[in-house]
Amino acid sequence: MKITSVETYADKDQCLVRILADGAGGAEGWGFAAPFSADITARCIHRFAAPYVLGKDAGDFQNYADEIIRRNYKFLGSFVARSAAGVDTALWDMAAKQAGKPVADFIGKKRDSIPIYASSMRRNPQPLQSEADRLLGFCEQYGFRAVKLHPGIPVNRNVDFYPGCSEELVQRTRRTLPEGIDIIVDVNGNFSSARAIEFGRFLKDNGVCMFEEPCPYWELDEVKKVREACAQFGMPVAAGEQDYMDTAWDRMIEEHIVDVAQPDLLYIGGFTRALRVAARFAEKGVPVTPHTSNRSPIYLMGVHYMSVIDKPYPFLECGVEFTGWEEAAYTSAPEIVGGNAQIPNAPGWGMQIKEDWLKKAEYQMSKL
Amino acid sequence: MKITSVETYADKDQCLVRILADGAGGAEGWGFAAPFSADITARCIHRFAAPYVLGKDAGDFQNYADEIIRRNYKFLGSFVARSAAGVDTALWDMAAKQAGKPVADFIGKKRDSIPIYASSMRRNPQPLQSEADRLLGFCEQYGFRAVKLHPGIPVNRNVDFYPGCSEELVQRTRRTLPEGIDIIVDVNGNFSSARAIEFGRFLKDNGVCMFEEPCPYWELDEVKKVREACAQFGMPVAAGEQDYMDTAWDRMIEEHIVDVAQPDLLYIGGFTRALRVAARFAEKGVPVTPHTSNRSPIYLMGVHYMSVIDKPYPFLECGVEFTGWEEAAYTSAPEIVGGNAQIPNAPGWGMQIKEDWLKKAEYQMSKL
Repeated sequence: MKITSVETYADKDQCLVRILADGAGGAEGWGFAAPFSADITARCIHRFAAPYVLGKDAGDFQNYADEIIRRNYKFLGSFVARSAAGVDTALWDMAAKQAGKPVADFIGKKRDSIPIYASSMRRNPQPLQSEADRLLGFCEQYGFRAVKLHPGIPVNRNVDFYPGCSEELVQRTRRTLPEGIDIIVDVNGNFSSARAIEFGRFLKDNGVCMFEEPCPYWELDEVKKVREACAQFGMPVAAGEQDYMDTAWDRMIEEHIVDVAQPDLLYIGGFTRALRVAARFAEKGVPVTPHTSNRSPIYLMGVHYMSVIDKPYPFLECGVEFTGWEEAAYTSAPEIVGGNAQIPNAPGWGMQIKEDWLKKAEYQMSKL
Repeated sequence: MKITSVETYADKDQCLVRILADGAGGAEGWGFAAPFSADITARCIHRFAAPYVLGKDAGDFQNYADEIIRRNYKFLGSFVARSAAGVDTALWDMAAKQAGKPVADFIGKKRDSIPIYASSMRRNPQPLQSEADRLLGFCEQYGFRAVKLHPGIPVNRNVDFYPGCSEELVQRTRRTLPEGIDIIVDVNGNFSSARAIEFGRFLKDNGVCMFEEPCPYWELDEVKKVREACAQFGMPVAAGEQDYMDTAWDRMIEEHIVDVAQPDLLYIGGFTRALRVAARFAEKGVPVTPHTSNRSPIYLMGVHYMSVIDKPYPFLECGVEFTGWEEAAYTSAPEIVGGNAQIPNAPGWGMQIKEDWLKKAEYQMSKL
């Protein structure tokens, strides 16, 4: 089947991608590009991704994300990877629908139910106790057995909102949640390795189970120092959500830079590329859980991903902010019952798209 | 002086940036973002760069490119760096104009005249002899004492248009040009290290003076192997034109990965960042010459750059394709006489902008 068109529907938050192929009866696939500034990603899809897939065989779809990234070497960066992801995820949907199966079954499902952790995106909630209480409420309502805090200011060179703010939030949350509920702490690259190691020890002393993105993610030497130091006192370090460069993944895998790997299925350049790193980490015994910090279709795709990879981390992330845009374009975010999300049963991703959102979105088309 | 507005004028090829600041009489600066898909860069300037400079002090302008890149860590890549460059170069223009000096004099000019090499962008010219003859003609017309060939297909994993095509072009050019004219060969990352080392030896045997971008630029370990091997038989290796990551520059500088460094003043994130790496390479004794492969305002900025850095390579690049778009927006590309370009005398960059191009360009404004 030859790919005949690539269409995008976008607003500033998100971008849906529709790909058509010819052949017996034709074929359709719907994908999703990474959220945020997705209107710019949509333009990049037509400039940098569509020209490399139009006219190509839809059956070879697992080669195209790499090809898009390599051929656009003069524009290497997040937008090209996001564009590749939009196309790649549409072609996975098409392939699975042609087989009449959900993506998870099409690949080979290994589990039916995915434990979820509640990911809070509040950074400086005041009073801090309100955040701890809110998370307790989510655990009681949905059955979550783990939560994630995002204290501090992203990539802000060790400077917090005020000294001790992050520490206090962690302690209040730990005191508020029952012992059986795990806490993950993500500082979004705010620390030098020295400060991160000190903070990692604090997290260990306060019963936190995972320390995420301690240093700016492109400073892999710094992250490596933190992982090695934190291993001495038993605090697992996670990273990877922003990374799209193969050379960065090679180092993370070969030099054991992370204890838990967290590729974003879309920032990395798509599902194909995310599956590849999961397989490589599994060979090294390193568990993987994708970055899915909101309830947009990336979360739906994350559920499929966790159901098929060889060595999943015990929990998948799910955002608990419910900000409106996240489910504006689709109705099929997996429900959470007893702390677990179920794998969708519909063919492809099982993404039920809202017609009214499509009508309001900015539309662009590239075709043969 | 407080920055009050950021305006862009763009088409698909290029993007001019105008910044205004308040204060006694006001101040104006004109910058240039990197060419190619510049319409997308213009959108990125308003999304990712303008919000970080509006309201800030124009006098602190040398801090802003780094800040723009760091704060937009979720979109890290070429478009954010290109956006930073548009703003940074406008603020250099403003600062130099406030001082009533050309940028080169404002920084401290070290030389008045810059030797130029003729950079051909033809990749598979047929017959090959026509390319050698064309370059000879340019040397006779403009007095160039060096030329650059771009044989082969960029980042194409060792595959040439046909086997031996690149070698034949190099040999024909060497035979056609007088001995006093140097030849640089740029393969745009097409080779593995093994193939590049073999090709580097061929270049040495055929009187070529510099071997540029042997391997995909993000594979720094590969480039390093090539440089070390080529040093054994005296073939200097150059790279850097696509790089914007500080971690990549750190490695290139500290691990002696290149014999000649070639930052692109705009791809790297602007003039401030390009000056910084030049100073660091000079400390290591490594010469620098920027990537300025077309006659757009990046070439004008390259002339300023070569006049102020501590350890310039003997020649600056200038494209010889004269494709139309390159001088569509300005009239002040430095003339080449006797193989040399002169430093402009007008305040700022000395960029004389064409009003009719501005009228046709897509206009966007961000303001306080």
